[in-house]
Amino acid sequence: MDFELQRIIEMALREDIGTGDITTQATVDPQIVCRAELVAKEDFVLAGIDVAAAVFAQLDSSVAFERLTSDGQQVRRGEVLAWLKGPAQALLQGERVALNLLQRMSGIATQTARFVIEVQGTAATVVDTRKTMPGLRSLDKYAVRVGGGTNHRTALYDGVLIKENHIVAAGGIATAIERARRRAPHTLKIEVETTTLDEVAEAIAAGADIILLDNMTLDQLREAVTLIGGRALAEASGGVNLETIREIAETGVNLISVGALTHSSRAVDISLLFQS
Amino acid sequence: MDFELQRIIEMALREDIGTGDITTQATVDPQIVCRAELVAKEDFVLAGIDVAAAVFAQLDSSVAFERLTSDGQQVRRGEVLAWLKGPAQALLQGERVALNLLQRMSGIATQTARFVIEVQGTAATVVDTRKTMPGLRSLDKYAVRVGGGTNHRTALYDGVLIKENHIVAAGGIATAIERARRRAPHTLKIEVETTTLDEVAEAIAAGADIILLDNMTLDQLREAVTLIGGRALAEASGGVNLETIREIAETGVNLISVGALTHSSRAVDISLLFQS
Amino acid sequence: MDFELQRIIEMALREDIGTGDITTQATVDPQIVCRAELVAKEDFVLAGIDVAAAVFAQLDSSVAFERLTSDGQQVRRGEVLAWLKGPAQALLQGERVALNLLQRMSGIATQTARFVIEVQGTAATVVDTRKTMPGLRSLDKYAVRVGGGTNHRTALYDGVLIKENHIVAAGGIATAIERARRRAPHTLKIEVETTTLDEVAEAIAAGADIILLDNMTLDQLREAVTLIGGRALAEASGGVNLETIREIAETGVNLISVGALTHSSRAVDISLLFQS
Amino acid sequence: MDFELQRIIEMALREDIGTGDITTQATVDPQIVCRAELVAKEDFVLAGIDVAAAVFAQLDSSVAFERLTSDGQQVRRGEVLAWLKGPAQALLQGERVALNLLQRMSGIATQTARFVIEVQGTAATVVDTRKTMPGLRSLDKYAVRVGGGTNHRTALYDGVLIKENHIVAAGGIATAIERARRRAPHTLKIEVETTTLDEVAEAIAAGADIILLDNMTLDQLREAVTLIGGRALAEASGGVNLETIREIAETGVNLISVGALTHSSRAVDISLLFQS
Amino acid sequence: MDFELQRIIEMALREDIGTGDITTQATVDPQIVCRAELVAKEDFVLAGIDVAAAVFAQLDSSVAFERLTSDGQQVRRGEVLAWLKGPAQALLQGERVALNLLQRMSGIATQTARFVIEVQGTAATVVDTRKTMPGLRSLDKYAVRVGGGTNHRTALYDGVLIKENHIVAAGGIATAIERARRRAPHTLKIEVETTTLDEVAEAIAAGADIILLDNMTLDQLREAVTLIGGRALAEASGGVNLETIREIAETGVNLISVGALTHSSRAVDISLLFQS
Amino acid sequence: MDFELQRIIEMALREDIGTGDITTQATVDPQIVCRAELVAKEDFVLAGIDVAAAVFAQLDSSVAFERLTSDGQQVRRGEVLAWLKGPAQALLQGERVALNLLQRMSGIATQTARFVIEVQGTAATVVDTRKTMPGLRSLDKYAVRVGGGTNHRTALYDGVLIKENHIVAAGGIATAIERARRRAPHTLKIEVETTTLDEVAEAIAAGADIILLDNMTLDQLREAVTLIGGRALAEASGGVNLETIREIAETGVNLISVGALTHSSRAVDISLLFQS
Repeated sequence: MDFELQRIIEMALREDIGTGDITTQATVDPQIVCRAELVAKEDFVLAGIDVAAAVFAQLDSSVAFERLTSDGQQVRRGEVLAWLKGPAQALLQGERVALNLLQRMSGIATQTARFVIEVQGTAATVVDTRKTMPGLRSLDKYAVRVGGGTNHRTALYDGVLIKENHIVAAGGIATAIERARRRAPHTLKIEVETTTLDEVAEAIAAGADIILLDNMTLDQLREAVTLIGGRALAEASGGVNLETIREIAETGVNLISVGALTHSSRAVDISLLFQS
Repeated sequence: MDFELQRIIEMALREDIGTGDITTQATVDPQIVCRAELVAKEDFVLAGIDVAAAVFAQLDSSVAFERLTSDGQQVRRGEVLAWLKGPAQALLQGERVALNLLQRMSGIATQTARFVIEVQGTAATVVDTRKTMPGLRSLDKYAVRVGGGTNHRTALYDGVLIKENHIVAAGGIATAIERARRRAPHTLKIEVETTTLDEVAEAIAAGADIILLDNMTLDQLREAVTLIGGRALAEASGGVNLETIREIAETGVNLISVGALTHSSRAVDISLLFQS
Repeated sequence: MDFELQRIIEMALREDIGTGDITTQATVDPQIVCRAELVAKEDFVLAGIDVAAAVFAQLDSSVAFERLTSDGQQVRRGEVLAWLKGPAQALLQGERVALNLLQRMSGIATQTARFVIEVQGTAATVVDTRKTMPGLRSLDKYAVRVGGGTNHRTALYDGVLIKENHIVAAGGIATAIERARRRAPHTLKIEVETTTLDEVAEAIAAGADIILLDNMTLDQLREAVTLIGGRALAEASGGVNLETIREIAETGVNLISVGALTHSSRAVDISLLFQS
Repeated sequence: MDFELQRIIEMALREDIGTGDITTQATVDPQIVCRAELVAKEDFVLAGIDVAAAVFAQLDSSVAFERLTSDGQQVRRGEVLAWLKGPAQALLQGERVALNLLQRMSGIATQTARFVIEVQGTAATVVDTRKTMPGLRSLDKYAVRVGGGTNHRTALYDGVLIKENHIVAAGGIATAIERARRRAPHTLKIEVETTTLDEVAEAIAAGADIILLDNMTLDQLREAVTLIGGRALAEASGGVNLETIREIAETGVNLISVGALTHSSRAVDISLLFQS
Repeated sequence: MDFELQRIIEMALREDIGTGDITTQATVDPQIVCRAELVAKEDFVLAGIDVAAAVFAQLDSSVAFERLTSDGQQVRRGEVLAWLKGPAQALLQGERVALNLLQRMSGIATQTARFVIEVQGTAATVVDTRKTMPGLRSLDKYAVRVGGGTNHRTALYDGVLIKENHIVAAGGIATAIERARRRAPHTLKIEVETTTLDEVAEAIAAGADIILLDNMTLDQLREAVTLIGGRALAEASGGVNLETIREIAETGVNLISVGALTHSSRAVDISLLFQS
Repeated sequence: MDFELQRIIEMALREDIGTGDITTQATVDPQIVCRAELVAKEDFVLAGIDVAAAVFAQLDSSVAFERLTSDGQQVRRGEVLAWLKGPAQALLQGERVALNLLQRMSGIATQTARFVIEVQGTAATVVDTRKTMPGLRSLDKYAVRVGGGTNHRTALYDGVLIKENHIVAAGGIATAIERARRRAPHTLKIEVETTTLDEVAEAIAAGADIILLDNMTLDQLREAVTLIGGRALAEASGGVNLETIREIAETGVNLISVGALTHSSRAVDISLLFQS
C-alpha cells in the first residue's frame, strides 16, 4: 500500500495546503507545541489509523502519534483513538486531511461489517466492486478488508470479467471465454457475467471459473447454484442491500459483490480535540 | 477547472486501467464501433456531464459524445443523459471511471439542491466546507455550485478562518484578528469561529468580517444575528441537516455551512447502456 | 498499452534530447523536409512498428509515417519496414529512440518465436517472466505476445505465485495456499513453486491451481505431470534454452516459462536511411 | 547519478509492485525478519552493487545490506556479493527489481571488460554509444565505465556529432562545421562522421576536433590516421566485435565506439538466496 | 512554503546537475570533506538563508550548515552569512543553485525595504503584484514579506480583482461586482480597478471592498481617498518608483502596489568561499 | 527547447491559475470573444514571442495569435508585437504569465545586445553563465542567443570547467586536467580557471582547451593572451560591465562571460491591450 498511500497523502495535503495555511501562519507561533486527541463521536469500525498518522508524519516528522486503537477494532462514541503531540502549526494543517481520510475509511469498514454480519453462518463472502472513489481505490479496498469483506479484482488490469458487452462483441459466451483463456495470463481465473440460466449453462460448458449471476431473483440464484454444482464459483450481484443480502447468501452463492460498500458509504464522525 | 479536471481524469484512468483492460483486449476486436447511452436510473440533479465526456475524449478522441442534458438540470428516471458512439474498447474502458465521477457529482448536486430548497425565501445561503473527498475537491465544489449552493474558501491557502485553536495559540480573539489583518493579504476577509455570544461581541469589536457561529442553539443564533447587526456576515455551522436547516435559516444568519453536502452524499444511479 | 507507451516514449525522448539536440539545431535548417526509410539489416520478427511511429508523432505531429509491415511479420534483410517524411530535425532527433525501442522489441519477438517453434505440436505454451527491462515491461511483454508467446502475470500485483520463501515464512505449502485463498482476490489462480514430487503432491492436495515445477529433471517433470493428472496446470521453469525446451515440452507440461525471452535478447539490426 | 538513480528505482519498483505484492502480503507475516545473500551464479565483472542496495533501502530503510564486493571487481561463480537482513516482506518485494538491474549492469561491465582487454597495449580507448536501454542510460553508461570503457557523449544535448544527414542538410562538411562552431557552446568539441578519405581531409581542413571513421576497412583506417596526423582525434565505428577490435585498434585510432556494449549485452546470473 | 520549496529546489538542482557534475566527479575524490562560508559581497537585506540550507540538505544530508544570520537582517559587505562543512562534491554541486536563489531573494528583500522606508510615517502599506518570476512566486512573495512589504493575492485563485476588461465584459462596474459577490466565495473581498473618479464613485456605490486607483495623478488620488471616505481600502498602482512613492503615500491611500519589487530586482552579490 | 518550454508554461500557468481564475469565472461570460494586442511600452530587442503564443495556445487552442514581429527584432515603443483573438476568459487568464515570460526574455535579449554592440570589431564573443533564473535556464539562454550572445555550457552535465576548488581537491592543475581528460567524455573540451599568469602557463602546459582568466587586470589579460598564443581559447570573466567590456575585449581574449546578462536584467515593459 506504500506507494499509493504516499501519493494519496501528498495529493491531499497539496490540495488543502497549497501555497500555505494563511490563518495558521498568521496567528500561530511556529514554536508552540500542543497536544490533541482523535476522538470517536459515534460508534464505528476503525480503519485508517495508520493513514492518519502518516498524514502528520509527512507534514512534520516531529509530531508524535500514539495509537490507542487499531484498524478493525469496534470503537465506541467518546473513545480516544490516538494521542498527538507536536507543533501546533502541523496539527492544525494536517487536521482536515487526516479526518477526511480516516472518516471515509472508517465509514467503509463500518458499512462492510454490517453486510458481513448479515451473511454469517452462510457460505457467502462479501466482496467489493470497482465503484470506489477515483484516486482512493487502494484505501477504499483496504477499508473493505478491515471491515471483514474481501476484495474483488483491483482494476481492469488484474482480473478477467467478461460482461454482456464483451460477449456481444465476441459473438457469444463460448468465444469470449476461449479468447480470454488464450490471451489473458494463465494466472487469472475467468469470470463471466450471466443474467439467465441458459447463459449460466453456457458459461459452465465453456469452462468459466467464476459465474457472475447479475440481478437474478432468489429462485434463479438457487437454480443457478444447483446448475453450477461446484464446477465454478457463483457470485451474486445487483439489488444487494442490508435487507436482501441474507436471503441472497442463503441461496448458496459463494460471493456477493456489493457496490454500496464504497460508492455511498457515510463518513463517520471523528474529531481532533486540542488540549488546552 | 481545467488543470484539475485533467489531473483527476488521468489519475482515475490510470488507477482503473493501469497496464491494460485485460478482458476487453482479449475479447473485443479493436475495430468494433458501437453506440451507448447514459441513462438515469433515478431522479436527480445532474452534475458532471462534461467530466464524463472528457473521460472518453481522453481515452480516445474518436468517441462522439452528444449531450442531451446539461449540468444543473433535474433529470428523471429513465431519461437519457447523453449518446455515445465510438470504439467499443474505449467505451468499455471508460465506463466505470465516467460513472464513478458522474454519480458522485450528481449525488452532491442533488443533496445540495435539497438543502437549498429548504432555505428558499430566507436570507441564508448554503455553503460547503473542506470536508470533501481528498483529491476531488474541485469537482466536489463545482457540484455544490451546480446544486445551487455556494463555495466557502477552497482550501487553507485562500481564506482566513480563525478557529478556536488559533485563538488559544494567539492568546485571544483580538490578537488573532490583528495578526491576521497584518499578515494575510488584504484581499481576504477575516472570519472568526465563535461558540458564545461573548466571543461574538469580542469578534465584532475586533473588526471581524465574518463570524462563524458554531453549534449554537436557535436562540443563540438569533441573539448573535441581532448582536452583529449587519456589521459582519453571520455564518451558522454544526448540527445542520435537512430537518434543522430551515429553522436555522430563519434566525437571520447570512450563511449556513453544511459538511454533509460533500462528506456523506450518496452516489446516484446511472447506467451506460450499450446498444446492440 | 497507451498510458505506459506514452510514459516510455516521453521518458526516452527526454533522456536523449533533454535541453536540445545541439548538432541538429546548429546545422540543420528547421524548414528542411526529408524522406527516410526504416530498413531491416537482418531477418527477424517485427515488433514495435507502432511504437516507432509514436516516437516521431510525439516529436512532431507533421511527420508522416507509412507502415509497410506490421507486428508479428517475419521480415527479411533489406526489407523496408516503413517510409517517413517530415522535418529533417524531427527525423534526426527521433531516430535513436525509435531504433532503440524497435530493435529491442523485435529482438524479443524473434527470440520468442524461436522458442515457440520448438514446442510446436506439443501441449506446451511458452510464457515469459518478470525478468524484463526495468521501466519497459509493458513493451517487453507485448513483444513476447507478438513472437507467439503468452504472458505470465504482469507483476507482483496481479498474480499469486507462492515461492519457496513464502512457503517457509508461512510454515508450509498448505498454510500458504490457504492464506492466499482467503486473502487474495478470488479472481486470481493460486500458483505454487515446487522442487520435489512430494511438494507437488502437497500442493495438489491443498488445491493449488497451477504448479510450478522448478529445475526438475525430465523424469521428474514426467512424473509430476502424471501426479497432477490434470487437476492443476503444470508449469516448468529453470534450465530452459533452445536446446532443452523441446524435451521439456514433451514431458506434457502445460507451460514453460523462459527468462531468456526478455533478460538477454539481442537487439536486431535496423537502420533509418535518409533519402537524398 | 543520484537523481537518475532515484527515478529509475522508483520507476522499477512501481512497475513491479504497483498496488501491492499480493502473494507476500497474503502469506508472509510482516514481523518476520530474515537473512539472504546475493550470490554469483557465474564469473563476471560486478557493476551495480550500490544500486541493488538502494532498491532495498527505498523499500524499507530497516533492511541491512552489507557489501562483500565492490563494483569493478571480477567475481567468481559461487561468490557471495552481499549479505542482507531485514523484513522478509521487503526482501521478497525488492528481489526481482534488484536482480534485474544488477544483472544487466554486471552484464554490460563484463562485456565491456572483454573489449577493453582486447585493445590493451594499443592507443585505443573503448567508448560506448547512445544504443542504450531507454530510461536506463545513466546506469548503462556507468556500467561501461566500471568495465573499463569510457563514455561518449551522454545524449544529443551534450556533444556535437555531425553525421551524414547533417552534412547533407547543411550543404557540406565545411558549412556544417562552421555552423556548429558558431552556434554550439565553445566548451564542446566538434566531431564529424566520415566514410571516405576525402571526407576525412575535408573535415581536417575545416578544423574538426574529432573525426569519426565509419565502417572503414583496416587499410582505410590506417590511411585516415596518417592523414589526420594528430590534428584531431580519430574514432572508429562500425563492424566492431571481439574478433575485429584488436586489428582496428592497431590501425592507430584513438577511440573505438562499440554499440554492442549496451544494445545486446547478456544479463549475468545472480541469485538472492534466503537463509532458512 | 514547504511543498513549494521542495519543488523549487528539486527543479533547480535537476536543471543544473542533470545526469551529473562531470567536472567534480572527474576531479574531486568523494571522500574529501571541506569547509566553506557564505559571504556578503555588498550590503543588503538577507532573505533565503533557509532556502540555501535546504539546497545543500537535499543534495547530501551530511552537510552541516550553521546559520550566522537570519532572514530580515541587514547584512554588511564582508559579513559571513553561514558556515558549511561537508563533502566537497556536495558543496561544489549545490553552490550555484543556492547562490542563484539566495541572491535573488535577498535582492527582492533589499529592494522592498527601500520602498518600505520611503513610506514610513504614512498610512500606506507596500504590497507586491503577480509580476513575479514564473515558478518562483512563493519565494518571491516570501522575500517581499522579509523586506517589510505585504503580499497582495497570491494568484488568480485566491483574490477577486475586477479589471477594466472584466468590467467591459460584464457590462459595467455594478454588474461585475454583483456577479463576483454572488459567485465568488464570501471569504474574499472584492477589489475593482478604476481610472477615473466617476468609476471610483460607481465602485463605492456598488459596494466594492477595495478600490484600485490605477495610474492616477496625485490630485486624483487625493480626491479619490476623500471620495472613498473609509468605506473601502484605497490601493494606488502605476508609475510607482522610489522617487514617487512618498508623494503617493502622502495622498492617504492605504496600499501601494509595486511591480518593481519582483519584476526587475537586481541579484545581490554573495560568494561561497571554500576554506583551504 | 520543446520539452522545457512545455514544462515551464505548465508550471507557470498552474502557479497563477491553480484551481481557477475566480474573477474571470465570476464576471466574464465564457462565450465572449475579444481581440487584444501585445504592445511595446519602450524600445527593446524582442525575445519570446513564440513563448507568449504557446502560453495562450496551451490555455485554449482556439486563441488566434498573429505575430507581427519576430525574435531578435529591435522594436520601438508603441509597436504592436502581435494580435490575439479568442475567448476573453483565455486572454485574461494567460495575460500575466505570457507577459512575465516575454518581458523577462526581452529584457535579457536587450541587455545582451548592449554588451554585444560594445565588443563589435574585436575578436571577443559575449557568453552567458549559469547565473540564470532557477527553472527558466533554457529560456534565459535562448534569450541570450537572440540578443546576439552565445551560450557557455548549459549546466554541470555538459561541460568541464575546473575551478579553483577542483584544483585544490585534485592537488594541482596538471592532475585535475589529466583526471578530466581520462574520465570525461572525449567530446568535451577542458576549461580551467586561472587567476595568475603562472597558473595560465601551467594550464597550457597541461593541455587545457580553454583558459578562464578570472578577475585579471587588463595588463594581465593581455599578457595571458600572449602567453596562450592561440594554443587554447582565452575567456575573461569577473568585473565585466558595459563600461569595462570594450577594454577587456581589446585585450584579445576570445570570450567574455557576463553574469549580468541573466542574473540582474530588467524586465522590459509590454502591455496586453484589449480592444473594445
